[in-house]
Formats: sequence, structure tokens, C-alpha cells
Amino acid sequence: MIKIIVDCFGGDKGVPATVGGAKLAIESFDDLEIVLTGDEQTIKDEMKRIGLKDRCTVVHAPDVISCNDKPTDVVRHRPESSMMKAIDMLRAGEADGMVTTGSTGALVAAATMRVGRLKGVSRPTFCPIIPTMNGRIVGVCDSGANVECTPKRLCQFAVMGSIYMKSVFGVKSPRVALLNVGVEEEKGDLLRKTTYQLLKNAEGLNFVGNMESRDLMSGNYDLVVCDGFSGNVLVKSAEGTALLMLKKIKKDISSRMRNKVGALFMKKMFKEEKEFMDYRNYGGSVILGTKKVIIKGHGSSTAVSVAKCIEQAYRMEASDINSQIEAAVAAYVEEKERAEA
Amino acid sequence: MIKIIVDCFGGDKGVPATVGGAKLAIESFDDLEIVLTGDEQTIKDEMKRIGLKDRCTVVHAPDVISCNDKPTDVVRHRPESSMMKAIDMLRAGEADGMVTTGSTGALVAAATMRVGRLKGVSRPTFCPIIPTMNGRIVGVCDSGANVECTPKRLCQFAVMGSIYMKSVFGVKSPRVALLNVGVEEEKGDLLRKTTYQLLKNAEGLNFVGNMESRDLMSGNYDLVVCDGFSGNVLVKSAEGTALLMLKKIKKDISSRMRNKVGALFMKKMFKEEKEFMDYRNYGGSVILGTKKVIIKGHGSSTAVSVAKCIEQAYRMEASDINSQIEAAVAAYVEEKERAEA
Repeated sequence: MIKIIVDCFGGDKGVPATVGGAKLAIESFDDLEIVLTGDEQTIKDEMKRIGLKDRCTVVHAPDVISCNDKPTDVVRHRPESSMMKAIDMLRAGEADGMVTTGSTGALVAAATMRVGRLKGVSRPTFCPIIPTMNGRIVGVCDSGANVECTPKRLCQFAVMGSIYMKSVFGVKSPRVALLNVGVEEEKGDLLRKTTYQLLKNAEGLNFVGNMESRDLMSGNYDLVVCDGFSGNVLVKSAEGTALLMLKKIKKDISSRMRNKVGALFMKKMFKEEKEFMDYRNYGGSVILGTKKVIIKGHGSSTAVSVAKCIEQAYRMEASDINSQIEAAVAAYVEEKERAEA
Repeated sequence: MIKIIVDCFGGDKGVPATVGGAKLAIESFDDLEIVLTGDEQTIKDEMKRIGLKDRCTVVHAPDVISCNDKPTDVVRHRPESSMMKAIDMLRAGEADGMVTTGSTGALVAAATMRVGRLKGVSRPTFCPIIPTMNGRIVGVCDSGANVECTPKRLCQFAVMGSIYMKSVFGVKSPRVALLNVGVEEEKGDLLRKTTYQLLKNAEGLNFVGNMESRDLMSGNYDLVVCDGFSGNVLVKSAEGTALLMLKKIKKDISSRMRNKVGALFMKKMFKEEKEFMDYRNYGGSVILGTKKVIIKGHGSSTAVSVAKCIEQAYRMEASDINSQIEAAVAAYVEEKERAEA
């Protein structure tokens, strides 16, 4: 049995999304067990409403974390929240992984401070999944958990991210790129130049060189490695631009009759474009490097997208990703020591 | 008379764009004089072909810089190139400003090393113009000239960028934002936290707080201040996403008959969306903080966009922007000293 906790509160769509997602996931995997945290009565009512009984338990947590709560305050003073209940259960070894659609900041802080790092991992990294134009995906780590990074940390992100793309998404030999201001080897600041050399010489990594941010969605890369500051800028800029463009097109359509007529023919296409850019369709962001599997779903996740996140957590646990990461990180350190000897 | 040099080579569209742009600009401003650098015969043939004679001179430069040339090599060993001829004329005080569509890297290096900084300016900054959803524009500095920055430098970028948005684009009190990973005051790394406090307390700046990258094109900001690394990631990510999306929509239209029919009604709209995202329509990127006005047009600039760049240079010179920058930078230093006393 694989046991995943679902934090039922903190997302925008409430228990219909989280409990609904749990139901879809339970139906998909026979050896999956789910723990739902949050207000017991609300969760039980929803379970009854949608007919969810098997392999599900509820852990009562009356408090809810919002995006405005200060992460360190959450970790220190909100043990009765649905998120911290889940985190504390992970810490106590009572489950294999968790899924939440609540505050990213609080989650990253709680994961780092409470769940703890895997052996050898210097810092856990936050890795969202972005769609690419060829219908595939690309991972970006770090994307906000570590605004300040060292070359060694970036290399660990590459190692952990590669294993993740392989184990969960079946990418055979993930093409790893370093986010930089140009593709040439000598580009960027000291952090980039040093990291480039480390990545180039790392065994077992398929490092393909620098990537400029404009190529994120090109489909030429499976994993982009960067510090959390520029990774955050990268991901949010791509997401923001795409959403604003779709909004603009929608506005422009309604501004002229002939556009409205044309749009009638293209209704399906526009819906598909919107779906394509909807990050919820690709699964949640993962925190890599912590002792337990932790997935952060989009705040506005629906039941289907929560189910995807649970599936992600399930696959990570099923592939024993954390043992793989510990082994790879240890091998990387050994390799470096050999090289330096 | 205002005298602007146009580097006629190094762009993708050759002399028809650069000499053509010069013609359009000459027709717009009576007190504008233009110097064209590059292969004399080719330029003269084009001038003859399009009927450009008045207020234009040609300076022969047989060599052309490409994007693959190493910036420092260009500055040191390519004095006969059309770009370095222009730079050296600026240095010698033989013109007020220059426009080029050639290599950005070479230009930034040459501008910094040869033309020199304005009094009090710590580092020149590279500032492109991005369209916003409400039909206006936003400047981003720095966007690649300085991959490593200090809080003081970022504040100077804010000062220079504000004057630029005011003088050239008529923005009355430019809303300045600091690029960060969240809008809250305490967000980001040490560089951001320190810069936030400096910007908040700076007199004469309309600092409106942190901006997340997803809001770049929202129309809520007139100038975004950032280090050159994250600025480059920001701008190229927005540009790249928009272009890829338009490409995807185009592909999806041609994949189904009903989409093709619909697109016929919306031909004009799609053309407008493409125009909207075409950075060439908004003018070139400026280097702020050098002793002379320097504009970098998009590599694929057409005659119309080259003319826009010349107009930008003309307006900067006409508003005596460099004296304004020197005065503002000096005032800022005095203010800081007062505050520290």
C-alpha cells in the first residue's frame, strides 16, 4: 500500500476539488490509501455526497492556511491547520507523501523545516512542470525555494530533477539545460560559469548546455536548472504572458462582429489553446530533496488536477525516487572527490 | 542640428532597412542630420535608388560585425567595422548619438569601453521597451548589460530609466517597480531587500513596490528595475512565449478546415496580434548612462523600425537627457549623503 495525505483546505476550489480528486485517484490505483486532512465534518459530508468510502481516512484539522500567512508563522504556530497536520504526519512517518493546493511559501518552509532533507541533499528544490510546443513538458528547478544558490546546489537540482523527469514522466535521458543569458559556454555571471563546468563534467547527466529563457517552451529541453530567483521570473513570465495574450485575444474577438463570427468556427481551437496553457493540466510542482514526497497543486486545481497530483505522488513513491536521489547524490559527491583527488 | 549616426550593417535586413529608415527620419525632422557608416558604394547605391540626398553623409567602413563575434575582440581589433566607426565618431564628439541593428553584446561592450560613462553613473544599463495589454509600454532596465548588480546600481537604473520614460515617451510620473519573486516588501534575496529600502526612500522616484514577472505586461508599471540576469530572463521569456503561442495558433489554424474558415474572418485581428507582439514596433533598446545617446534596434528591424530608433535618439538628444541624468544622479548621491549624515 502507498499512503498519500491530501490537504483538503487552502485551495481556491474547496473540498469538492480535493475530496473529488481523492476519489478519482482511489479509483485508479488499487494499492493506494488516502488520508484527508481538514474540517472532519465538511470532508465527511463531501465523501458521503460523492460516494467515497474505500481506503480513505479523515484526520481532523480545524485551522486553514491562506496565502497571506507568513510561512515561518505557519510552521511555528499553526499545528492545527490542515497543511501542518499533513506535514507533521509525514514527519512522524505516518504516510509516504502528501498533496496540497495551499500556500507555496508555507509549504516550502514546512517541508524544509519539519520533514527534513534527504541524506546528502544541501537544499530541497521546487520544480514545476511547463508545457512545451511539441506537446510534451519541461521541468524547472529551482523555481522559488532558493533565491540564493551555489554551483553545487544547482548541480544537485540537476541530479534530482533528472531522476524526477525519468521516474515520473518516463523521459529516458532527460536533456538538462542551464538557464543563462546566452547559449555560449562563457556567458553569464560567476555562478553560471562555474555551474556550467560542473554540469559539463558530471557523470550520468545529459547536460546539453545553456538555454535562453525564450526557448523554455521550445521542446528542446526536459529540465532547466536555475537559481530560485531567475527560475521564478522565468516560469511566471511565461505563464503571465500566455494568460495575458489569451485574455487579449478574447477581448479583441468581442470587439468586432466579424471576429465573433470567426471565433464561432474556432471555438474548439481556442478552448484547446486555453487548456494547453492551463498549468493545472500537467500536474503539480514537486519539492525534491525532502525525506517524503510532497506535491503542490495549483491553487485553483479542480478534482481532475488534484487527482493528477496524487498520481504524481504515487508514481514517485512507487519508483522509490528518494532512494534513487540519495544514491545519485552520494555518487555525485564521490565522483567529485575522485576528480579532485 | 542634431546629428545621429546610423550603423548600416550588422542587421538582418541590410541597407534597405537602415538607409530606408534614415530617409523616413530625415523627412520627419527638419533639424536632423544623419551619418551612415558601412560600405560606401553599397550605401550610396541605395541612397540613389530611394532618392536620399539631403542632410546625409556617408563614412566608409568595410568591415561588418556579426552576432558571433566576441564583444571584446570587436572593440579591440575591428576599428574598420561599421559599428566601431560609429562608436569612435561618438567618442571623438563628431555626433550626438547612434543607432545600430547589429550585435547587442559588441555594442554594450563598445559603449562602455569607448564612449564612457556619464559623470556619477556607476554602470550604463540596457533598457528595452515592452508592449503592455492596455496599449502602452513598459521599460525594463537592466536587461542584460550587467549580470551582476549592487543595490546602488539598481537605484541608478531606476533614476535613469524614469528620466528616459519621461523624456522620450512622455510618461508623466513613471511608476517604477522592482522585479521580485513576490509583491511583499520582505520578499527576495539580500539584493532585492536592500534595493527595496533604497528605492522606497529615494526622493523624486515614483516607486510602487515589487512586481512579479507575470505582471510585466499588465500595464500597471512604466519601468521595471532588475539585475541584468533576471531582466534578460524576464524579457526573453515574455517575448519567446508570445511568439511561440502565435506560432502554435497558426499551426492549429491550418490543421482543421473549420479553423481555416474562422481565421478568414479574423485575418485582420491575427495580424494585429502579431503586430502587437512585434517588438520592432515599439522602438529600440537604449543604453542609458553613456556620454552619448545609443540605440540598439532589433536585428530584424525594417526601415520603419529603424526610423523609430532614429526618432528615439533624436528625442533623447532634443530633451538633453544626459544632462538630466547627470543632475539626477548627483542629486541622488547628495540626498543619500544627507540621509546618512
